[in-house]
Amino acid sequence: MDVSVSDELRGLTVGVLGGTGPQGRGLARRFGAAGLDVVLGSRDAERAARTAAGLPGRVRGGSNADAAGQADIVVVAVPWEGHAELLATLAPALAGKIVVDCVNPLGFDKQGAYALPVAEGSAAQQAAAILTGSRVVAAFHHVSAVHLEDPDLDRVDTDVLVLGDDREATDLVRDLAAAIPGVRGVYGGRLRNAHQVEAFTANLISVNRRYRAHAGLRVTDV
Amino acid sequence: MDVSVSDELRGLTVGVLGGTGPQGRGLARRFGAAGLDVVLGSRDAERAARTAAGLPGRVRGGSNADAAGQADIVVVAVPWEGHAELLATLAPALAGKIVVDCVNPLGFDKQGAYALPVAEGSAAQQAAAILTGSRVVAAFHHVSAVHLEDPDLDRVDTDVLVLGDDREATDLVRDLAAAIPGVRGVYGGRLRNAHQVEAFTANLISVNRRYRAHAGLRVTDV
Repeated sequence: MDVSVSDELRGLTVGVLGGTGPQGRGLARRFGAAGLDVVLGSRDAERAARTAAGLPGRVRGGSNADAAGQADIVVVAVPWEGHAELLATLAPALAGKIVVDCVNPLGFDKQGAYALPVAEGSAAQQAAAILTGSRVVAAFHHVSAVHLEDPDLDRVDTDVLVLGDDREATDLVRDLAAAIPGVRGVYGGRLRNAHQVEAFTANLISVNRRYRAHAGLRVTDV
Repeated sequence: MDVSVSDELRGLTVGVLGGTGPQGRGLARRFGAAGLDVVLGSRDAERAARTAAGLPGRVRGGSNADAAGQADIVVVAVPWEGHAELLATLAPALAGKIVVDCVNPLGFDKQGAYALPVAEGSAAQQAAAILTGSRVVAAFHHVSAVHLEDPDLDRVDTDVLVLGDDREATDLVRDLAAAIPGVRGVYGGRLRNAHQVEAFTANLISVNRRYRAHAGLRVTDV
């Protein structure tokens, strides 16, 4: 077990919904490398198993329902389209668990990315509205999937903003972020302030275009 | 003239609307210290003159109309309440100029700060809708006024995100940010993506509360 894994996190299993997409696969890679038990979920369980087999550590594949049911902390890394429907289906399996939403509701046109309106305010608040029995936290919005997936990159140079209304849950997810070498988990406010954190991904996409970068964020004076 | 002032910026006069508030006063201090000519504007011209007299460099005080009329680049650092009305009044004086909006439309309750809805999308887009003859840029949302105003702090450890649809204007405002030692001006996207940058100030207020900090942001990999 990697030294960067906190006592609170040790022994817990992390599920990743949408684990065959770049963001989910990259997070699963880093959690596996840190020595955590990971269940990588996908709509296609066989594809999940193939993806898991290529990742370091104890990462196994399964359906999204497997990941939701077998894990203690479940990261939601699915596309915004279908987000609500998937969570509604998995709500019973996710009850009592910490659910970490990292979905960015964005649209794209020839001028780049922009924030989509969300009736509940944000993807994270939509998750909280659907998963009334879960402890919903928002995090991992801005971490570059390219960096997460690069096996030659030992450290990822970014902070992860962690938002939520449950102190114990946000503290554990801050630990989960810190399990990735180079990353700090920084508390970033209540869930009602998740919209701008999700939407800010559009700005980072603009930064990436202008500077040919994979931009992240560091919070200074913290 | 400070070496951190670019050739493009050299010789230009910077106006600050709302220059007697903490943010405007702090920016005027830093622009004055960099050797720029500054007109610090306020509703109360006498108060502006007194404030200007306490700042380093060539900072003079006047009314907001003086600052708008006499400057080449005009920073809008007024409270969100009255933002639209003031800009409508000054629109003729601001025509043809670069207007830098740094206003954060926020509400506050016992749980902290939160983003207010803005009909135009953001304060910056509201400014652009009113100031149809100006080149509106959004910047300086997240810089700590406490840090700007601290005469013992030589360098301010943050990047300034600069948003706008006019490349020449955003480049000049990036130079203006970089005139503050320690600060980089980083292009942060089009004006349509200003809302989340303004609203993100609510998250930084949460960070400041939790960590007893004056948080700023650095963009990594740029």
